Amino acid sequence: MVDNDNGTAPGIILEKDGKRIVLLPGPPNELIPMFEKSIAPYLLSLDPNGPAVIYSRTVKICGLGESGVEALITDLEALQNPTVAPYAKTGEVHLRVTARAEDEKAARKLVKPVVKELERRFGRAVYTTKNDVTLEDAVVRLLKKNDLTAATVESCTAGLLAGRLVNVPGVSDVFKTGLITYSNKAKRRLAGVKKETLEKYGAVSPQTAQEMAVGGAKAAGADVAVSITGIAGPDGGSEEKPVGLVYMACFVCGNVWVEEFRFKGSRAKIRESSVAAALTLMRRCILEVFD
Amino acid sequence: MVDNDNGTAPGIILEKDGKRIVLLPGPPNELIPMFEKSIAPYLLSLDPNGPAVIYSRTVKICGLGESGVEALITDLEALQNPTVAPYAKTGEVHLRVTARAEDEKAARKLVKPVVKELERRFGRAVYTTKNDVTLEDAVVRLLKKNDLTAATVESCTAGLLAGRLVNVPGVSDVFKTGLITYSNKAKRRLAGVKKETLEKYGAVSPQTAQEMAVGGAKAAGADVAVSITGIAGPDGGSEEKPVGLVYMACFVCGNVWVEEFRFKGSRAKIRESSVAAALTLMRRCILEVFD
Repeated sequence: MVDNDNGTAPGIILEKDGKRIVLLPGPPNELIPMFEKSIAPYLLSLDPNGPAVIYSRTVKICGLGESGVEALITDLEALQNPTVAPYAKTGEVHLRVTARAEDEKAARKLVKPVVKELERRFGRAVYTTKNDVTLEDAVVRLLKKNDLTAATVESCTAGLLAGRLVNVPGVSDVFKTGLITYSNKAKRRLAGVKKETLEKYGAVSPQTAQEMAVGGAKAAGADVAVSITGIAGPDGGSEEKPVGLVYMACFVCGNVWVEEFRFKGSRAKIRESSVAAALTLMRRCILEVFD
Repeated sequence: MVDNDNGTAPGIILEKDGKRIVLLPGPPNELIPMFEKSIAPYLLSLDPNGPAVIYSRTVKICGLGESGVEALITDLEALQNPTVAPYAKTGEVHLRVTARAEDEKAARKLVKPVVKELERRFGRAVYTTKNDVTLEDAVVRLLKKNDLTAATVESCTAGLLAGRLVNVPGVSDVFKTGLITYSNKAKRRLAGVKKETLEKYGAVSPQTAQEMAVGGAKAAGADVAVSITGIAGPDGGSEEKPVGLVYMACFVCGNVWVEEFRFKGSRAKIRESSVAAALTLMRRCILEVFD
Protein backbone atom coordinates (compact mmCIF):
# COMPACT_ATOMS: atom_id res chain seq x y z
CA MET A 1 0.00 0.00 0.00
CA VAL A 2 1.22 3.46 -0.80
CA ASP A 3 1.21 6.05 1.92
CA ASN A 4 -1.21 8.81 1.54
CA ASP A 5 -1.85 11.78 3.73
CA ASN A 6 -4.97 13.35 2.27
CA GLY A 7 -7.75 10.86 2.74
CA THR A 8 -7.66 9.43 -0.77
CA ALA A 9 -7.55 5.65 -0.77
CA PRO A 10 -4.08 4.55 -1.90
CA GLY A 11 -3.39 2.17 -4.78
CA ILE A 12 -1.79 -1.24 -4.31
CA ILE A 13 1.76 -1.80 -5.49
CA LEU A 14 3.38 -5.21 -5.83
CA GLU A 15 6.89 -6.10 -6.83
CA LYS A 16 8.00 -9.23 -8.66
CA ASP A 17 11.30 -10.02 -10.40
CA GLY A 18 12.30 -6.38 -10.19
CA LYS A 19 9.04 -5.26 -11.85
CA ARG A 20 6.42 -3.20 -10.09
CA ILE A 21 2.70 -3.66 -10.62
CA VAL A 22 0.29 -0.93 -9.60
CA LEU A 23 -3.33 -1.92 -9.08
CA LEU A 24 -5.94 0.81 -9.30
CA PRO A 25 -9.73 0.82 -9.53
CA GLY A 26 -11.43 1.52 -12.86
CA PRO A 27 -13.93 4.31 -12.07
CA PRO A 28 -12.25 7.57 -13.17
CA ASN A 29 -13.41 9.53 -10.13
CA GLU A 30 -11.50 7.06 -7.92
CA LEU A 31 -8.67 6.28 -10.31
CA ILE A 32 -7.59 9.81 -11.17
CA PRO A 33 -7.21 11.24 -7.61
CA MET A 34 -5.51 8.01 -6.48
CA PHE A 35 -3.05 8.19 -9.34
CA GLU A 36 -2.35 11.88 -8.90
CA LYS A 37 -2.07 11.84 -5.12
CA SER A 38 -0.35 8.51 -4.43
CA ILE A 39 1.02 6.82 -7.50
CA ALA A 40 2.56 9.73 -9.40
CA PRO A 41 4.66 10.88 -6.38
CA TYR A 42 5.64 7.25 -5.75
CA LEU A 43 6.78 6.79 -9.34
CA LEU A 44 8.73 10.04 -9.26
CA SER A 45 10.43 8.95 -6.01
CA LEU A 46 11.81 5.87 -7.81
CA ASP A 47 13.65 7.86 -10.45
CA PRO A 48 17.42 7.17 -10.15
CA ASN A 49 18.22 10.39 -11.99
CA GLY A 50 16.42 12.53 -9.47
CA PRO A 51 13.23 14.49 -10.05
CA ALA A 52 12.19 15.15 -13.63
CA VAL A 53 9.29 16.70 -15.46
CA ILE A 54 7.26 14.90 -18.08
CA TYR A 55 5.48 17.26 -20.48
CA SER A 56 3.13 16.28 -23.31
CA ARG A 57 1.26 17.97 -26.08
CA THR A 58 -1.23 16.26 -28.34
CA VAL A 59 -1.53 16.97 -32.05
CA LYS A 60 -5.09 15.99 -32.95
CA ILE A 61 -5.88 14.94 -36.50
CA CYS A 62 -9.28 14.33 -38.08
CA GLY A 63 -10.29 12.87 -41.42
CA LEU A 64 -7.26 10.58 -41.83
CA GLY A 65 -7.06 6.92 -40.84
CA GLU A 66 -4.56 5.53 -38.34
CA SER A 67 -2.48 3.73 -40.96
CA GLY A 68 -2.34 6.83 -43.16
CA VAL A 69 -1.12 8.91 -40.23
CA GLU A 70 1.44 6.33 -39.09
CA ALA A 71 2.89 6.05 -42.59
CA LEU A 72 3.82 9.74 -42.38
CA ILE A 73 5.53 9.59 -38.98
CA THR A 74 7.66 6.43 -38.97
CA ASP A 75 10.82 8.55 -38.64
CA LEU A 76 9.35 10.51 -35.72
CA GLU A 77 8.19 7.38 -33.91
CA ALA A 78 11.85 6.41 -33.60
CA LEU A 79 12.66 9.54 -31.53
CA GLN A 80 13.66 9.00 -27.89
CA ASN A 81 13.07 12.41 -26.32
CA PRO A 82 10.54 13.64 -27.14
CA THR A 83 8.66 10.49 -28.07
CA VAL A 84 5.78 10.54 -30.57
CA ALA A 85 2.96 8.08 -29.84
CA PRO A 86 -0.18 7.67 -31.97
CA TYR A 87 -3.58 6.96 -30.39
CA ALA A 88 -6.45 5.93 -32.65
CA LYS A 89 -9.80 7.44 -31.63
CA THR A 90 -13.13 7.18 -33.45
CA GLY A 91 -12.66 9.32 -36.57
CA GLU A 92 -9.51 10.90 -35.16
CA VAL A 93 -5.85 10.13 -34.55
CA HIS A 94 -4.03 11.79 -31.66
CA LEU A 95 -0.25 12.08 -31.73
CA ARG A 96 1.16 12.61 -28.27
CA VAL A 97 4.55 14.28 -28.14
CA THR A 98 6.17 13.71 -24.75
CA ALA A 99 9.45 15.05 -23.46
CA ARG A 100 11.32 14.47 -20.25
CA ALA A 101 13.60 17.14 -18.85
CA GLU A 102 14.75 18.66 -15.59
CA ASP A 103 12.09 21.37 -15.69
CA GLU A 104 8.98 22.22 -17.65
CA LYS A 105 10.64 24.94 -19.69
CA ALA A 106 13.28 22.55 -20.98
CA ALA A 107 10.65 19.89 -21.71
CA ARG A 108 8.49 22.37 -23.65
CA LYS A 109 11.52 23.34 -25.70
CA LEU A 110 12.02 19.72 -26.74
CA VAL A 111 8.35 19.25 -27.62
CA LYS A 112 7.79 22.44 -29.62
CA PRO A 113 9.75 21.70 -32.83
CA VAL A 114 8.21 18.23 -33.15
CA VAL A 115 4.69 19.65 -32.79
CA LYS A 116 5.56 22.19 -35.50
CA GLU A 117 6.85 19.44 -37.77
CA LEU A 118 3.64 17.43 -37.28
CA GLU A 119 1.57 20.51 -38.10
CA ARG A 120 3.63 20.99 -41.24
CA ARG A 121 3.15 17.36 -42.32
CA PHE A 122 -0.60 17.11 -41.63
CA GLY A 123 -1.67 20.65 -42.45
CA ARG A 124 -5.39 21.30 -42.23
CA ALA A 125 -6.09 17.83 -40.90
CA VAL A 126 -4.69 19.06 -37.55
CA TYR A 127 -7.64 20.56 -35.73
CA THR A 128 -5.77 21.43 -32.55
CA THR A 129 -2.46 21.06 -30.76
CA LYS A 130 -4.02 21.69 -27.37
CA ASN A 131 -4.62 18.74 -25.05
CA ASP A 132 -8.02 19.90 -23.83
CA VAL A 133 -9.62 20.92 -27.14
CA THR A 134 -12.04 18.38 -28.64
CA LEU A 135 -13.20 18.09 -32.25
CA GLU A 136 -16.57 19.62 -31.31
CA ASP A 137 -14.74 22.49 -29.58
CA ALA A 138 -12.78 23.12 -32.78
CA VAL A 139 -15.96 23.14 -34.90
CA VAL A 140 -17.77 25.49 -32.50
CA ARG A 141 -14.77 27.85 -32.44
CA LEU A 142 -14.70 27.90 -36.22
CA LEU A 143 -18.42 28.74 -36.33
CA LYS A 144 -17.97 31.52 -33.76
CA LYS A 145 -14.91 32.92 -35.51
CA ASN A 146 -16.87 33.26 -38.76
CA ASP A 147 -20.07 34.39 -37.06
CA LEU A 148 -22.04 31.44 -38.39
CA THR A 149 -25.02 29.53 -37.00
CA ALA A 150 -25.34 25.80 -37.57
CA ALA A 151 -28.19 23.30 -37.60
CA THR A 152 -28.18 19.51 -37.64
CA VAL A 153 -30.50 17.16 -39.53
CA GLU A 154 -30.03 13.62 -38.34
CA SER A 155 -31.52 10.29 -39.22
CA CYS A 156 -29.49 7.25 -38.09
CA THR A 157 -27.51 9.21 -35.49
CA ALA A 158 -30.79 10.69 -34.19
CA GLY A 159 -29.43 13.54 -32.10
CA LEU A 160 -25.97 12.30 -31.23
CA LEU A 161 -24.29 14.90 -33.46
CA ALA A 162 -26.26 17.77 -31.92
CA GLY A 163 -25.68 16.25 -28.49
CA ARG A 164 -21.95 16.30 -29.12
CA LEU A 165 -21.90 19.91 -30.36
CA VAL A 166 -23.76 20.87 -27.18
CA ASN A 167 -20.95 19.33 -25.10
CA VAL A 168 -19.32 22.70 -25.69
CA PRO A 169 -20.34 25.32 -23.09
CA GLY A 170 -21.51 28.52 -24.77
CA VAL A 171 -22.56 26.74 -27.96
CA SER A 172 -25.89 28.60 -27.85
CA ASP A 173 -24.31 31.49 -29.79
CA VAL A 174 -24.01 29.28 -32.85
CA PHE A 175 -26.32 26.32 -32.39
CA LYS A 176 -30.08 26.93 -32.08
CA THR A 177 -31.96 24.11 -33.76
CA GLY A 178 -31.59 20.45 -34.56
CA LEU A 179 -33.96 18.23 -36.48
CA ILE A 180 -34.18 14.50 -35.92
CA THR A 181 -35.87 13.14 -39.02
CA TYR A 182 -35.92 9.43 -38.37
CA SER A 183 -38.93 8.58 -40.56
CA ASN A 184 -39.41 9.53 -44.21
CA LYS A 185 -42.42 11.62 -43.20
CA ALA A 186 -40.27 13.60 -40.77
CA LYS A 187 -37.66 14.12 -43.48
CA ARG A 188 -40.38 15.59 -45.67
CA ARG A 189 -42.18 17.62 -43.04
CA LEU A 190 -39.26 19.02 -41.07
CA ALA A 191 -36.54 19.26 -43.70
CA GLY A 192 -38.60 19.56 -46.87
CA VAL A 193 -37.15 16.50 -48.59
CA LYS A 194 -39.21 15.80 -51.72
CA LYS A 195 -41.45 12.75 -51.82
CA GLU A 196 -40.09 11.91 -55.28
CA THR A 197 -36.50 11.99 -54.01
CA LEU A 198 -37.33 9.50 -51.28
CA GLU A 199 -39.23 7.27 -53.69
CA LYS A 200 -36.65 7.38 -56.47
CA TYR A 201 -33.39 7.22 -54.49
CA GLY A 202 -34.42 6.07 -51.00
CA ALA A 203 -33.85 7.61 -47.58
CA VAL A 204 -30.20 6.54 -47.61
CA SER A 205 -28.91 8.28 -50.71
CA PRO A 206 -26.76 11.27 -51.63
CA GLN A 207 -29.85 13.04 -53.00
CA THR A 208 -31.78 12.70 -49.73
CA ALA A 209 -28.73 13.75 -47.69
CA GLN A 210 -28.38 16.85 -49.85
CA GLU A 211 -32.06 17.83 -49.54
CA MET A 212 -31.92 17.24 -45.78
CA ALA A 213 -29.00 19.66 -45.41
CA VAL A 214 -30.38 22.33 -47.72
CA GLY A 215 -33.91 22.05 -46.33
CA GLY A 216 -32.67 21.89 -42.74
CA ALA A 217 -30.64 25.08 -43.16
CA LYS A 218 -33.73 26.81 -44.52
CA ALA A 219 -36.08 25.46 -41.84
CA ALA A 220 -33.68 26.46 -39.07
CA GLY A 221 -32.61 29.73 -40.66
CA ALA A 222 -29.00 28.63 -40.21
CA ASP A 223 -25.86 29.46 -42.22
CA VAL A 224 -24.52 25.91 -41.95
CA ALA A 225 -26.42 22.62 -41.82
CA VAL A 226 -25.11 19.10 -41.77
CA SER A 227 -27.22 16.04 -42.48
CA ILE A 228 -26.64 12.35 -41.75
CA THR A 229 -28.66 9.48 -43.22
CA GLY A 230 -27.47 5.89 -43.16
CA ILE A 231 -27.99 2.28 -42.23
CA ALA A 232 -26.73 1.68 -38.70
CA GLY A 233 -27.91 -1.93 -38.57
CA PRO A 234 -28.06 -4.59 -37.38
CA ASP A 235 -30.99 -5.00 -39.83
CA GLY A 236 -32.07 -2.94 -42.81
CA GLY A 237 -29.03 -3.54 -45.00
CA SER A 238 -29.07 -4.96 -48.53
CA GLU A 239 -26.45 -5.92 -51.08
CA GLU A 240 -26.78 -2.56 -52.78
CA LYS A 241 -27.02 -0.59 -49.51
CA PRO A 242 -25.21 -2.53 -46.80
CA VAL A 243 -25.18 -1.83 -43.06
CA GLY A 244 -22.60 0.90 -42.48
CA LEU A 245 -23.45 2.88 -45.62
CA VAL A 246 -23.93 6.52 -44.56
CA TYR A 247 -24.45 9.66 -46.63
CA MET A 248 -23.81 13.11 -45.24
CA ALA A 249 -24.21 16.55 -46.69
CA CYS A 250 -22.99 19.89 -45.50
CA PHE A 251 -24.55 23.19 -46.51
CA VAL A 252 -22.44 26.31 -45.95
CA CYS A 253 -23.91 29.62 -47.10
CA GLY A 254 -25.28 28.33 -50.40
CA ASN A 255 -22.61 25.70 -51.11
CA VAL A 256 -23.30 22.00 -50.57
CA TRP A 257 -20.97 19.03 -50.27
CA VAL A 258 -22.15 15.41 -50.18
CA GLU A 259 -20.07 12.47 -48.97
CA GLU A 260 -20.46 8.71 -48.87
CA PHE A 261 -19.03 6.64 -46.03
CA ARG A 262 -18.84 2.90 -45.41
CA PHE A 263 -18.34 2.31 -41.71
CA LYS A 264 -17.72 -1.00 -40.01
CA GLY A 265 -18.74 -2.36 -36.63
CA SER A 266 -21.76 -2.44 -34.37
CA ARG A 267 -24.79 -0.15 -34.58
CA ALA A 268 -23.26 1.99 -31.82
CA LYS A 269 -19.87 2.13 -33.54
CA ILE A 270 -21.37 3.07 -36.92
CA ARG A 271 -23.35 5.90 -35.28
CA GLU A 272 -20.31 7.13 -33.33
CA SER A 273 -18.13 7.04 -36.46
CA SER A 274 -20.83 8.97 -38.33
CA VAL A 275 -20.86 11.74 -35.72
CA ALA A 276 -17.07 12.13 -35.85
CA ALA A 277 -17.13 12.17 -39.67
CA ALA A 278 -19.90 14.80 -39.67
CA LEU A 279 -17.88 17.10 -37.39
CA THR A 280 -14.88 16.62 -39.68
CA LEU A 281 -17.03 17.37 -42.74
CA MET A 282 -18.45 20.54 -41.14
CA ARG A 283 -14.97 21.74 -40.32
CA ARG A 284 -13.63 21.03 -43.81
CA CYS A 285 -16.54 22.69 -45.60
CA ILE A 286 -16.45 25.81 -43.42
CA LEU A 287 -12.68 26.09 -44.00
CA GLU A 288 -13.20 25.75 -47.76
CA VAL A 289 -15.57 28.71 -47.77
CA PHE A 290 -14.02 30.92 -45.11
CA ASP A 291 -10.30 30.20 -44.97
CA MET B 1 1.46 -16.33 -19.85
CA VAL B 2 -1.66 -18.38 -20.27
CA ASP B 3 -1.79 -20.92 -23.05
CA ASN B 4 -4.11 -20.21 -25.83
CA ASP B 5 -4.90 -22.23 -28.90
CA ASN B 6 -7.11 -19.93 -30.94
CA GLY B 7 -4.97 -16.99 -31.90
CA THR B 8 -6.22 -14.61 -29.20
CA ALA B 9 -3.37 -12.99 -27.30
CA PRO B 10 -3.26 -14.44 -23.78
CA GLY B 11 -3.39 -12.40 -20.59
CA ILE B 12 -0.49 -12.25 -18.13
CA ILE B 13 -0.81 -13.97 -14.77
CA LEU B 14 1.54 -13.38 -11.86
CA GLU B 15 1.59 -15.05 -8.48
CA LYS B 16 2.73 -13.52 -5.21
CA ASP B 17 2.19 -14.70 -1.64
CA GLY B 18 -0.39 -17.21 -2.80
CA LYS B 19 -2.35 -14.47 -4.64
CA ARG B 20 -2.76 -14.38 -8.40
CA ILE B 21 -2.81 -11.21 -10.41
CA VAL B 22 -4.19 -11.22 -13.94
CA LEU B 23 -3.16 -8.37 -16.21
CA LEU B 24 -5.39 -7.61 -19.16
CA PRO B 25 -5.60 -4.73 -21.65
CA GLY B 26 -8.34 -2.13 -21.30
CA PRO B 27 -9.94 -2.00 -24.77
CA PRO B 28 -13.09 -4.16 -24.59
CA ASN B 29 -12.54 -5.76 -27.98
CA GLU B 30 -9.20 -7.13 -26.71
CA LEU B 31 -10.19 -7.63 -23.07
CA ILE B 32 -13.38 -9.62 -23.56
CA PRO B 33 -12.09 -12.33 -25.92
CA MET B 34 -8.90 -12.65 -23.83
CA PHE B 35 -10.92 -13.08 -20.67
CA GLU B 36 -13.36 -15.52 -22.20
CA LYS B 37 -10.83 -17.62 -24.07
CA SER B 38 -7.88 -17.71 -21.69
CA ILE B 39 -8.64 -16.35 -18.24
CA ALA B 40 -12.05 -17.87 -17.52
CA PRO B 41 -10.89 -21.45 -18.28
CA TYR B 42 -7.74 -20.81 -16.24
CA LEU B 43 -9.76 -19.59 -13.25
CA LEU B 44 -12.13 -22.55 -13.48
CA SER B 45 -9.16 -24.93 -13.58
CA LEU B 46 -8.00 -23.60 -10.21
CA ASP B 47 -11.21 -24.46 -8.38
CA PRO B 48 -10.41 -27.02 -5.62
CA ASN B 49 -14.06 -28.14 -5.54
CA GLY B 50 -14.01 -29.10 -9.18
CA PRO B 51 -15.87 -27.33 -11.96
CA ALA B 52 -18.71 -25.05 -10.96
CA VAL B 53 -21.11 -22.73 -12.70
CA ILE B 54 -21.60 -19.09 -11.81
CA TYR B 55 -24.97 -17.73 -12.90
CA SER B 56 -26.20 -14.15 -12.52
CA ARG B 57 -29.36 -12.23 -13.15
CA THR B 58 -29.67 -8.48 -12.84
CA VAL B 59 -32.72 -6.75 -11.42
CA LYS B 60 -32.65 -3.25 -12.92
CA ILE B 61 -34.35 -0.42 -11.05
CA CYS B 62 -35.03 3.12 -12.25
CA GLY B 63 -36.29 6.20 -10.45
CA LEU B 64 -34.86 5.31 -7.03
CA GLY B 65 -31.51 6.43 -5.61
CA GLU B 66 -28.76 4.04 -4.54
CA SER B 67 -29.25 4.68 -0.82
CA GLY B 68 -33.01 4.18 -1.07
CA VAL B 69 -32.48 0.88 -2.82
CA GLU B 70 -29.79 -0.30 -0.39
CA ALA B 71 -31.98 0.49 2.62
CA LEU B 72 -34.50 -2.05 1.33
CA ILE B 73 -32.04 -4.88 0.76
CA THR B 74 -29.70 -4.93 3.78
CA ASP B 75 -30.99 -8.42 4.73
CA LEU B 76 -30.44 -9.74 1.19
CA GLU B 77 -26.93 -8.29 0.97
CA ALA B 78 -25.97 -10.66 3.81
CA LEU B 79 -26.83 -13.74 1.72
CA GLN B 80 -23.92 -16.02 0.75
CA ASN B 81 -25.35 -18.01 -2.18
CA PRO B 82 -26.83 -16.35 -4.07
CA THR B 83 -25.19 -13.02 -3.34
CA VAL B 84 -26.95 -9.71 -4.01
CA ALA B 85 -24.70 -6.85 -5.13
CA PRO B 86 -25.89 -3.33 -5.96
CA TYR B 87 -24.32 -1.32 -8.79
CA ALA B 88 -25.17 2.38 -9.05
CA LYS B 89 -25.60 3.60 -12.63
CA THR B 90 -26.68 7.03 -13.83
CA GLY B 91 -30.38 7.21 -12.90
CA GLU B 92 -30.52 3.47 -12.26
CA VAL B 93 -29.50 0.89 -9.68
CA HIS B 94 -28.70 -2.65 -10.80
CA LEU B 95 -28.94 -5.50 -8.31
CA ARG B 96 -26.94 -8.50 -9.44
CA VAL B 97 -28.04 -11.82 -7.99
CA THR B 98 -25.29 -14.42 -8.40
CA ALA B 99 -25.34 -18.07 -7.48
CA ARG B 100 -22.70 -20.77 -7.65
CA ALA B 101 -23.68 -24.38 -8.12
CA GLU B 102 -22.54 -27.56 -9.82
CA ASP B 103 -24.62 -26.88 -12.91
CA GLU B 104 -26.62 -24.03 -14.43
CA LYS B 105 -29.97 -25.54 -13.54
CA ALA B 106 -29.09 -25.67 -9.84
CA ALA B 107 -27.67 -22.11 -9.97
CA ARG B 108 -30.82 -20.77 -11.64
CA LYS B 109 -32.91 -22.42 -8.94
CA LEU B 110 -30.97 -20.53 -6.26
CA VAL B 111 -31.27 -17.19 -8.08
CA LYS B 112 -34.97 -17.33 -8.98
CA PRO B 113 -36.62 -16.79 -5.56
CA VAL B 114 -34.33 -13.87 -4.75
CA VAL B 115 -35.15 -12.18 -8.06
CA LYS B 116 -38.84 -12.68 -7.28
CA GLU B 117 -38.38 -11.18 -3.82
CA LEU B 118 -36.62 -8.13 -5.31
CA GLU B 119 -39.44 -7.69 -7.83
CA ARG B 120 -41.92 -7.84 -4.97
CA ARG B 121 -40.03 -5.23 -2.94
CA PHE B 122 -39.41 -2.76 -5.77
CA GLY B 123 -42.59 -3.27 -7.81
CA ARG B 124 -42.92 -0.99 -10.81
CA ALA B 125 -39.49 0.51 -10.27
CA VAL B 126 -38.06 -2.74 -11.70
CA TYR B 127 -37.92 -2.22 -15.44
CA THR B 128 -36.36 -5.57 -16.28
CA THR B 129 -34.83 -8.69 -14.75
CA LYS B 130 -32.98 -9.54 -17.94
CA ASN B 131 -29.25 -8.87 -18.12
CA ASP B 132 -29.27 -7.56 -21.68
CA VAL B 133 -32.29 -5.22 -21.54
CA THR B 134 -31.50 -1.51 -21.16
CA LEU B 135 -33.77 1.25 -19.91
CA GLU B 136 -34.26 2.50 -23.48
CA ASP B 137 -35.14 -1.06 -24.56
CA ALA B 138 -37.78 -1.18 -21.82
CA VAL B 139 -39.28 2.16 -22.90
CA VAL B 140 -39.34 1.15 -26.58
CA ARG B 141 -40.99 -2.19 -25.72
CA LEU B 142 -43.62 -0.38 -23.70
CA LEU B 143 -44.34 1.96 -26.62
CA LYS B 144 -44.59 -0.98 -29.03
CA LYS B 145 -46.78 -3.00 -26.69
CA ASN B 146 -49.27 -0.12 -26.49
CA ASP B 147 -48.96 0.80 -30.17
CA LEU B 148 -47.74 4.31 -29.36
CA THR B 149 -45.44 6.68 -31.21
CA ALA B 150 -43.11 9.01 -29.29
CA ALA B 151 -41.35 12.28 -30.01
CA THR B 152 -38.62 14.11 -28.10
CA VAL B 153 -38.24 17.86 -27.53
CA GLU B 154 -34.85 18.62 -26.09
CA SER B 155 -33.06 21.74 -25.00
CA CYS B 156 -30.06 21.15 -22.68
CA THR B 157 -29.69 17.49 -23.65
CA ALA B 158 -29.88 18.51 -27.33
CA GLY B 159 -30.49 15.14 -28.92
CA LEU B 160 -28.96 12.78 -26.37
CA LEU B 161 -32.38 11.43 -25.32
CA ALA B 162 -33.40 10.71 -28.93
CA GLY B 163 -29.93 9.33 -29.57
CA ARG B 164 -30.38 6.90 -26.70
CA LEU B 165 -33.83 5.76 -27.81
CA VAL B 166 -32.35 5.07 -31.24
CA ASN B 167 -29.79 2.73 -29.64
CA VAL B 168 -32.63 0.23 -29.86
CA PRO B 169 -32.75 -1.58 -33.23
CA GLY B 170 -36.23 -1.44 -34.75
CA VAL B 171 -37.14 1.77 -32.90
CA SER B 172 -38.43 3.22 -36.18
CA ASP B 173 -41.86 1.66 -35.51
CA VAL B 174 -42.38 4.03 -32.57
CA PHE B 175 -39.92 6.91 -32.95
CA LYS B 176 -40.18 9.15 -36.01
CA THR B 177 -39.33 12.72 -35.02
CA GLY B 178 -37.19 14.58 -32.53
CA LEU B 179 -36.93 18.33 -32.07
CA ILE B 180 -33.84 20.01 -30.66
CA THR B 181 -35.02 23.41 -29.52
CA TYR B 182 -31.88 24.90 -28.04
CA SER B 183 -32.81 28.57 -28.55
CA ASN B 184 -36.02 30.27 -27.43
CA LYS B 185 -36.85 30.94 -31.07
CA ALA B 186 -36.58 27.23 -31.86
CA LYS B 187 -38.83 26.44 -28.89
CA ARG B 188 -41.41 28.80 -30.35
CA ARG B 189 -41.09 27.82 -33.99
CA LEU B 190 -40.72 24.06 -33.70
CA ALA B 191 -42.70 23.26 -30.55
CA GLY B 192 -45.12 26.18 -30.45
CA VAL B 193 -44.05 27.46 -27.02
CA LYS B 194 -45.74 30.84 -26.45
CA LYS B 195 -43.61 33.97 -26.45
CA GLU B 196 -45.38 35.11 -23.25
CA THR B 197 -44.53 31.85 -21.47
CA LEU B 198 -40.84 32.29 -22.27
CA GLU B 199 -40.92 35.95 -21.21
CA LYS B 200 -42.88 35.39 -18.00
CA TYR B 201 -41.38 32.13 -16.71
CA GLY B 202 -38.17 31.72 -18.71
CA ALA B 203 -36.91 28.87 -20.87
CA VAL B 204 -36.12 26.75 -17.82
CA SER B 205 -39.52 26.52 -16.14
CA PRO B 206 -42.30 23.97 -15.66
CA GLN B 207 -44.54 26.05 -17.94
CA THR B 208 -42.07 25.97 -20.83
CA ALA B 209 -41.39 22.24 -20.32
CA GLN B 210 -45.12 21.58 -20.49
CA GLU B 211 -45.65 23.61 -23.66
CA MET B 212 -42.62 21.93 -25.26
CA ALA B 213 -44.09 18.48 -24.63
CA VAL B 214 -47.63 19.34 -25.70
CA GLY B 215 -46.53 21.35 -28.73
CA GLY B 216 -43.92 18.75 -29.67
CA ALA B 217 -46.49 15.94 -29.64
CA LYS B 218 -48.70 18.03 -31.90
CA ALA B 219 -45.90 19.05 -34.27
CA ALA B 220 -44.70 15.46 -34.57
CA GLY B 221 -48.15 13.91 -34.63
CA ALA B 222 -47.01 11.59 -31.81
CA ASP B 223 -48.97 9.92 -29.01
CA VAL B 224 -46.21 10.53 -26.47
CA ALA B 225 -43.75 13.43 -26.22
CA VAL B 226 -41.15 14.13 -23.58
CA SER B 227 -39.43 17.49 -23.16
CA ILE B 228 -36.26 18.48 -21.33
CA THR B 229 -35.20 22.04 -20.51
CA GLY B 230 -32.56 22.86 -17.95
CA ILE B 231 -29.31 24.51 -17.00
CA ALA B 232 -26.43 22.13 -17.69
CA GLY B 233 -23.76 24.68 -16.79
CA PRO B 234 -21.00 25.44 -16.17
CA ASP B 235 -22.40 28.97 -16.72
CA GLY B 236 -25.96 30.25 -16.92
CA GLY B 237 -26.99 29.45 -13.36
CA SER B 238 -28.43 31.91 -10.82
CA GLU B 239 -29.46 31.71 -7.19
CA GLU B 240 -33.07 31.17 -8.21
CA LYS B 241 -32.24 28.80 -11.07
CA PRO B 242 -28.95 27.07 -10.29
CA VAL B 243 -26.89 24.87 -12.57
CA GLY B 244 -28.45 21.40 -12.48
CA LEU B 245 -32.06 22.63 -12.39
CA VAL B 246 -33.94 20.70 -15.08
CA TYR B 247 -37.66 20.59 -15.92
CA MET B 248 -39.19 17.79 -17.91
CA ALA B 249 -42.69 17.15 -19.10
CA CYS B 250 -44.27 14.06 -20.55
CA PHE B 251 -47.38 14.12 -22.71
CA VAL B 252 -49.24 10.81 -23.12
CA CYS B 253 -52.45 10.85 -25.17
CA GLY B 254 -53.81 14.10 -23.71
CA ASN B 255 -52.35 13.79 -20.19
CA VAL B 256 -49.31 15.80 -19.12
CA TRP B 257 -46.92 15.38 -16.20
CA VAL B 258 -44.26 17.94 -15.28
CA GLU B 259 -41.28 17.24 -13.02
CA GLU B 260 -38.49 19.27 -11.49
CA PHE B 261 -35.02 17.82 -10.98
CA ARG B 262 -31.88 19.17 -9.34
CA PHE B 263 -28.91 17.26 -10.64
CA LYS B 264 -25.32 17.54 -9.46
CA GLY B 265 -22.04 17.25 -11.28
CA SER B 266 -20.42 18.36 -14.51
CA ARG B 267 -22.25 19.56 -17.62
CA ALA B 268 -21.88 16.06 -19.09
CA LYS B 269 -23.14 14.39 -15.92
CA ILE B 270 -26.18 16.69 -15.63
CA ARG B 271 -27.11 15.97 -19.25
CA GLU B 272 -26.62 12.21 -18.80
CA SER B 273 -28.71 12.23 -15.61
CA SER B 274 -31.43 14.19 -17.44
CA VAL B 275 -31.62 11.59 -20.21
CA ALA B 276 -31.98 8.71 -17.71
CA ALA B 277 -34.64 10.63 -15.76
CA ALA B 278 -36.56 11.39 -18.98
CA LEU B 279 -36.63 7.70 -19.92
CA THR B 280 -37.84 6.88 -16.40
CA LEU B 281 -40.51 9.60 -16.64
CA MET B 282 -41.71 8.32 -20.04
CA ARG B 283 -41.98 4.82 -18.66
CA ARG B 284 -43.88 5.91 -15.54
CA CYS B 285 -46.35 8.12 -17.42
CA ILE B 286 -47.09 5.46 -20.05
CA LEU B 287 -47.65 2.90 -17.29
CA GLU B 288 -49.99 5.31 -15.49
CA VAL B 289 -52.17 5.61 -18.58
CA PHE B 290 -51.92 2.10 -20.02
CA ASP B 291 -51.29 -0.32 -17.17
